[in-house]
Amino acid sequence: MTQEKLASATTPVVAEPPRAWTRRHLLDVDDFTPAEIEAVMQTTDAMKEVMGRDVPRVPALRGKTIVTLFYETSTRTRASFELAGKALGADVINISAGGSSVEKGESLIDTVRTLQAVGADILVMRHWAAGAPYLVARHLQSAVINAGDGAHAHPTQALLDLYTIRNHLGDIRGRRVVIVGDIEHSRVARSNIWALSSMGAQVVVCAPPTLLPTAIRSPAAGRGSIPNGNSSESLALPPVEVETHLDRALESAEVVMTLRLQKERMQSGLLPSLREYATLYQLNEERISRARTGALVMHPGPMNEGIEISPGLASSLQSVIEEQVTNGVAVRMAVLYLIARGAKP
Amino acid sequence: MTQEKLASATTPVVAEPPRAWTRRHLLDVDDFTPAEIEAVMQTTDAMKEVMGRDVPRVPALRGKTIVTLFYETSTRTRASFELAGKALGADVINISAGGSSVEKGESLIDTVRTLQAVGADILVMRHWAAGAPYLVARHLQSAVINAGDGAHAHPTQALLDLYTIRNHLGDIRGRRVVIVGDIEHSRVARSNIWALSSMGAQVVVCAPPTLLPTAIRSPAAGRGSIPNGNSSESLALPPVEVETHLDRALESAEVVMTLRLQKERMQSGLLPSLREYATLYQLNEERISRARTGALVMHPGPMNEGIEISPGLASSLQSVIEEQVTNGVAVRMAVLYLIARGAKP
Amino acid sequence: MTQEKLASATTPVVAEPPRAWTRRHLLDVDDFTPAEIEAVMQTTDAMKEVMGRDVPRVPALRGKTIVTLFYETSTRTRASFELAGKALGADVINISAGGSSVEKGESLIDTVRTLQAVGADILVMRHWAAGAPYLVARHLQSAVINAGDGAHAHPTQALLDLYTIRNHLGDIRGRRVVIVGDIEHSRVARSNIWALSSMGAQVVVCAPPTLLPTAIRSPAAGRGSIPNGNSSESLALPPVEVETHLDRALESAEVVMTLRLQKERMQSGLLPSLREYATLYQLNEERISRARTGALVMHPGPMNEGIEISPGLASSLQSVIEEQVTNGVAVRMAVLYLIARGAKP
Repeated sequence: MTQEKLASATTPVVAEPPRAWTRRHLLDVDDFTPAEIEAVMQTTDAMKEVMGRDVPRVPALRGKTIVTLFYETSTRTRASFELAGKALGADVINISAGGSSVEKGESLIDTVRTLQAVGADILVMRHWAAGAPYLVARHLQSAVINAGDGAHAHPTQALLDLYTIRNHLGDIRGRRVVIVGDIEHSRVARSNIWALSSMGAQVVVCAPPTLLPTAIRSPAAGRGSIPNGNSSESLALPPVEVETHLDRALESAEVVMTLRLQKERMQSGLLPSLREYATLYQLNEERISRARTGALVMHPGPMNEGIEISPGLASSLQSVIEEQVTNGVAVRMAVLYLIARGAKP
Repeated sequence: MTQEKLASATTPVVAEPPRAWTRRHLLDVDDFTPAEIEAVMQTTDAMKEVMGRDVPRVPALRGKTIVTLFYETSTRTRASFELAGKALGADVINISAGGSSVEKGESLIDTVRTLQAVGADILVMRHWAAGAPYLVARHLQSAVINAGDGAHAHPTQALLDLYTIRNHLGDIRGRRVVIVGDIEHSRVARSNIWALSSMGAQVVVCAPPTLLPTAIRSPAAGRGSIPNGNSSESLALPPVEVETHLDRALESAEVVMTLRLQKERMQSGLLPSLREYATLYQLNEERISRARTGALVMHPGPMNEGIEISPGLASSLQSVIEEQVTNGVAVRMAVLYLIARGAKP
Repeated sequence: MTQEKLASATTPVVAEPPRAWTRRHLLDVDDFTPAEIEAVMQTTDAMKEVMGRDVPRVPALRGKTIVTLFYETSTRTRASFELAGKALGADVINISAGGSSVEKGESLIDTVRTLQAVGADILVMRHWAAGAPYLVARHLQSAVINAGDGAHAHPTQALLDLYTIRNHLGDIRGRRVVIVGDIEHSRVARSNIWALSSMGAQVVVCAPPTLLPTAIRSPAAGRGSIPNGNSSESLALPPVEVETHLDRALESAEVVMTLRLQKERMQSGLLPSLREYATLYQLNEERISRARTGALVMHPGPMNEGIEISPGLASSLQSVIEEQVTNGVAVRMAVLYLIARGAKP
């Protein structure tokens, strides 16, 4: 026992957390420096090595408790964090809003304070309200990881997307990355725009005008600011190229990321019909030929096949969609590891 | 750590998986050879030995991830697989259709591909649609275990029933086993008929004519075929004796298995009333006296006491119902073990 | 492996379970002797020491299976037991009534017998019906811990409250402890009254007359009796001081415990309005000044801030509400440990 405990307390997975990482929480990537992103990428490399082992487990977080608190349903993100935590030897406790005292009307702050008092070292939370994890982080000693907040941010998704692109293309600087779809309501798009821009990519967003955030037309300052609404209207974004015509957007693209059309989030009136959307904005075999040969096709999932992406393209050789999910576990292991180490006094 | 890992990677639970086992998935037992069933029985013996230890855990599946994906509610089967996986040192992640992105309308194939990408080595799934696990197995590298699909199959239930009978009666060959109840809609009955017939038992089914599958009147070929409907009408079955009168069916029976009357699955009109069903088909103390002295009384649970079985008989000395549940853990440990070893390249 | 197993089987957490503990179940504290309560307090001290370690885990329950079965939603109690079990090295399986075969109409006894057969060593259960855990304990070999049954009892809450008070005030004998709120429907109040009285505290209950149990007006004998109703009317209580005027109740109080106003449990007509209740019975900064300086403010959670307690007081220096939650994990570790050891033949 003693021997095993010592091992778990001292065996490093990677040499040491890169100096660049000093954060206690992961709320968004909008204020990340390139060095911080690089720290996540390198730690993810180490985690991929762990995942390739016969017994893909390492006791780096042994004795730590991770609580996942999800106010929106999820398969991949929740399972991904749960597996990442377990692979690092942590205990993982799942709380979903449906089966908890949330139903009794307990306030968010009360709930998370309770989870902290119960012993949560890291709280992984998803909430329908933009900014909720910021509020929580202000009231908590435990580390907070934002697993998606309203239309605001989804930082681990952006990091896993970046990691996937980097694995195929190496340096991202100057690469033309096109994000297609409901930019206005997409936390995936917003976090990706920040992360990709930080690393010097040439980001293009493509959507019908009604699904483009106003911030994109008049880029504002205010990086790292706390969101206070559920639409991205008030949210800052770095300058990106805007293109409402998909064929033009795809020209010489090296990466194309298409977004799930979140039917439930769109107010009526923003789109004439799903059919018209599919006609104009569906990514398919024919359209992708406008991009560079072998351009990467990405989707954060879950897909509406036949709407924003054609089934054929989704399962084509250009698609790295399953690779994104696999990388998601390694990226989340990296983030949990960096935060657990950083949170140590 | 290194030492512990070596141990976990090399300590065999049983000598080696029996040669007879070469399957990657467990979808049904309808095409099992007697040697394959025997392999499960012997491995289960080894697992029962593990379960009898002071610390009933063995690290045979350490570093493996088992995902349970249930589209129908369940206590015993889900908990049984979860405990079996944990007893073997695997990590177990539970996904229920209610709390996952299934609600968002993600397709089954998308969901399971995601779970595979997240790192599921073995997917244990229950689905209301017959054939769903076959569809999944065709699209997945991960191993798939069918934990019940529609009215089609429930292979681990049949294996645990067989194991329980064997523990009491030894060789099953020639034993008269009576299955009473809603045969038409029962995956338990169907898988048991196949497994028992394979091992040479004399199977008798007993039900009102409206709850007998047509296949039983005109036994078809087609073992191992993939079901494509939700009624068992199209499903093949081996030849069995049919008896609509319970007292006659019970004569010289050595095993009597009564089935849960699945009220929710029966279309209206198939039964006049629950009361009439109970009068004619309830297994009780008086009726069991027609069977051989000490005949085993079995039920797959959950029971409707007072409908298909009397409370007195359910808790009598002849009842092995709780033993079935206990054996369920050992059988599932065996199946997980055989599949995990078999799945290794 | 062998070495690790030996260690886990023999390393004691505390010297040995105190002699005073001989119970197999924890159903209520109403028949606890002061020596038994003291045994829990001392074991909790040992568990607090474990929780303060770098790796706050100890393999005392390795190989044990704890099943939590909740028929009412809960965040803190369920998570608290789950973490306590995992910290002791047990496997924890969660069953909630919503996602289990309970929906199929399986009887409670059938469900718990199944969980026992599946391998549950300890069943932690919460049920809306007073007395349900008693019924279960009579039918089960496994140990049963009552995590709250109807309006009857919540023994681990009372033990953690006692532990929290003891940490601040030392000996409880003669201390004036005021419990404010819906005493009639509160299992927290009832278990606390028994535990505090056992230890010699001077218990005062304060509520509008409609929320006071009749037993309090005419204290009955019958400690340790099995409840058979859902109101506390039929339940015995030890003699306590009754005060319907909050200001008078608070005079020279050393501890004030305010209860959640369970809106859903109150039959209409018991209270004129929430607003009137808050006016007369809310614990706030102004009112607490009537109590002794530095009197402890306690709440079992989840709080209705602005109703039974003011937000300011809840987060004041006098509040030990978060400490209660933290102590809850240690107390539950202690109880699980004592029961697991005691249950050993």
